[in-house]
Amino acid sequence: MPTAPNPFVPSPSLLDYVRPQALAVPGSGIVEVMNYGRTRPGMIPLWAGEGDLPTPAFIAEAATRSLAAGETFYTWQRGIPELRAAIAKYIAGLYGVPEDPERFFVTGSGMQAIQLCLALTMGADEEIIIPSPAWPNAAAAAQVLGARPVFVPFDFDVADGFSLDLDRLEDAVTPRTRVIFINSPANPTGFVAPAETLRGVLDIARRHGLWIVADEIYGRFYYEAGEGGVNGRHVAPSFHDVMEPDDRILFVQTFSKNWAMTGWRLGWIEANPELGDVIANLIQYSTSGVAPFMQRAGIAALERGESFVAHQIERARRGRDIVADGLLPTNRVRLARPPGAFYAFFGVEGETDMRALALKLVDEANIGLAPGTAFGPGGEDFIRLCFARGEAQLTEATNRLATWLTR
Amino acid sequence: MPTAPNPFVPSPSLLDYVRPQALAVPGSGIVEVMNYGRTRPGMIPLWAGEGDLPTPAFIAEAATRSLAAGETFYTWQRGIPELRAAIAKYIAGLYGVPEDPERFFVTGSGMQAIQLCLALTMGADEEIIIPSPAWPNAAAAAQVLGARPVFVPFDFDVADGFSLDLDRLEDAVTPRTRVIFINSPANPTGFVAPAETLRGVLDIARRHGLWIVADEIYGRFYYEAGEGGVNGRHVAPSFHDVMEPDDRILFVQTFSKNWAMTGWRLGWIEANPELGDVIANLIQYSTSGVAPFMQRAGIAALERGESFVAHQIERARRGRDIVADGLLPTNRVRLARPPGAFYAFFGVEGETDMRALALKLVDEANIGLAPGTAFGPGGEDFIRLCFARGEAQLTEATNRLATWLTR
Repeated sequence: MPTAPNPFVPSPSLLDYVRPQALAVPGSGIVEVMNYGRTRPGMIPLWAGEGDLPTPAFIAEAATRSLAAGETFYTWQRGIPELRAAIAKYIAGLYGVPEDPERFFVTGSGMQAIQLCLALTMGADEEIIIPSPAWPNAAAAAQVLGARPVFVPFDFDVADGFSLDLDRLEDAVTPRTRVIFINSPANPTGFVAPAETLRGVLDIARRHGLWIVADEIYGRFYYEAGEGGVNGRHVAPSFHDVMEPDDRILFVQTFSKNWAMTGWRLGWIEANPELGDVIANLIQYSTSGVAPFMQRAGIAALERGESFVAHQIERARRGRDIVADGLLPTNRVRLARPPGAFYAFFGVEGETDMRALALKLVDEANIGLAPGTAFGPGGEDFIRLCFARGEAQLTEATNRLATWLTR
Repeated sequence: MPTAPNPFVPSPSLLDYVRPQALAVPGSGIVEVMNYGRTRPGMIPLWAGEGDLPTPAFIAEAATRSLAAGETFYTWQRGIPELRAAIAKYIAGLYGVPEDPERFFVTGSGMQAIQLCLALTMGADEEIIIPSPAWPNAAAAAQVLGARPVFVPFDFDVADGFSLDLDRLEDAVTPRTRVIFINSPANPTGFVAPAETLRGVLDIARRHGLWIVADEIYGRFYYEAGEGGVNGRHVAPSFHDVMEPDDRILFVQTFSKNWAMTGWRLGWIEANPELGDVIANLIQYSTSGVAPFMQRAGIAALERGESFVAHQIERARRGRDIVADGLLPTNRVRLARPPGAFYAFFGVEGETDMRALALKLVDEANIGLAPGTAFGPGGEDFIRLCFARGEAQLTEATNRLATWLTR
């Protein structure tokens, strides 16, 4: 018998029937400030992790040509062979590793790469260790799976910036730990793990039978390599440098940052080919692959994007210095010039409520920053500014902030 | 201390460290046959659930224009407001329901819509009831979450086709049941739930506090409506016709079939707006939204695609009749002309191993069909043929099959 609604009893909320783990997942603390400020005239938005340049035309046109040629049908779950080959060549060139297309799996964003890597390795009531403060999405994706993030705080001082204590990391390992998530160069801290730290994390993972999910998406936004780079490379230290082929390391990557493709939702997983069938299944049962015309754009980016990437990196390096050189003389910020990624993450003397500060800066300085509270434990005393922007706009934003700080 | 690999002890496989639920997820039984036959010259592929027409130019060009205009940045998690409004108008027109954009959430495919609806409603060790045979991906997505599919077999006879016994459906409910998954019109069976069946399913869901995930993506591929349609509509009966606003029903939809956009990976969830924040979070922590230029194409499809959709449906109706009229006279098939979707799903007299039959038809008739074994319990005695194709090719494929059957 159908139950007729009883008008005298309030209906239960639909939310009462939502899976508790899904209901408990926190919203983004960045979006709150964006929604507060996004329509202000003259606002300079430095809250999101994206630059101000649209995708270069040669990349967009590769998608357009593919679309016009009718590449609109279902395609390989793992990605089209040409893109997997192009990624393999790119990674081989960047890190001096063997070129093996079977290691690469195209995903619908770096975020999806993370989500699939977690679904591959952990489930309900298991734990992922995440150095914190951190971009919140990896922890949240674990929570959606019913798993628990365990945060290990970075050390911070103004002279040396952020660093990771390996003993504290290992102390966080429990019998339920499955994954260590390492983002280096890191959002929001700018932390870059030296090779010996990566080696130490790998040792811990080996000792305890854990996976490493390596988020090295900012690897090329690395400002400490000097003229010739490290071993001739302008790229941050990577797990590629220290791992053996059978180590349990899953790399997540994205086209978003290097090639100004944030909106595209295009990324990849790099993994041992032994995992290929399982990863293909996880792709099949989540989004079933990525549009072939999007993948053609990825090939164009990898094969013809080097001068654009170099331009982006140089622009970010200048941006970093504009912000640091403009804010440090105010003597009101606790800021270490970050060695990597494209964020200044700093404390402000006399300010303890960073959410309130972010809202106040919208109102009083017309600039949009992201409160450190959005980045989990240890972020409470900081605020994040994205400097992947043009010189004029960044200079103006820095002046507004410096003026506000010294008003 | 790092553990040095011991050359005398074989390394454990990486697969030993994969989450058991991820490892257990089955691969697609369709892909095996596709891989076996896809490179044969002259092969007519009727194994996948897609037509032979590329996306219409006016849809592709909407994406191209947006790309050229630089719409390549992060955008709304729930979808751009213009697309949500266009979907709301389309659904209101199709089903005579109020027009409410807040009910719609853009996803990176209908598959992702299903995956997110399951993550919203169920987790480890909980159960989803699925009438079977069925498109395997909903069950597999539940398995990835650590949940269990519980299959309820359709009844079948050649005169009346497939039907769903509501008592048997209710008998499958246990304290662990969270979701009933109803695909109507159905892949692969062509089953179309009459309104009284939908009402019966809804009563069961209400009685037991369950969610319904309603997969009505083939709603317009419905061949029994007659000249004027049902209430002037050429659309299959829908949960829209029988539900109250606070019923626990989640609709999953896709642009794939109506608008020949299978490769795009673009779909939507329709849900009570009360669930909006939770759904937005689930999107954020899986793919973080859909490219804005893809969404512009979706708007073009909805607003200017009606004559193309009518053409597709008429083509599929003709395809159905070509196949049925060609195969029934062989007297070797158990085939009921399907009232909806675009598949003939039939048994073959004297053939018991449908996987072997599919491979044999590749070798001996140069046509590609999907074995019923790929569609779960109850599919073992059937084979699936997709008839969303042009008349000439379908006629040739049907002739090849009829000739083979009567050889």
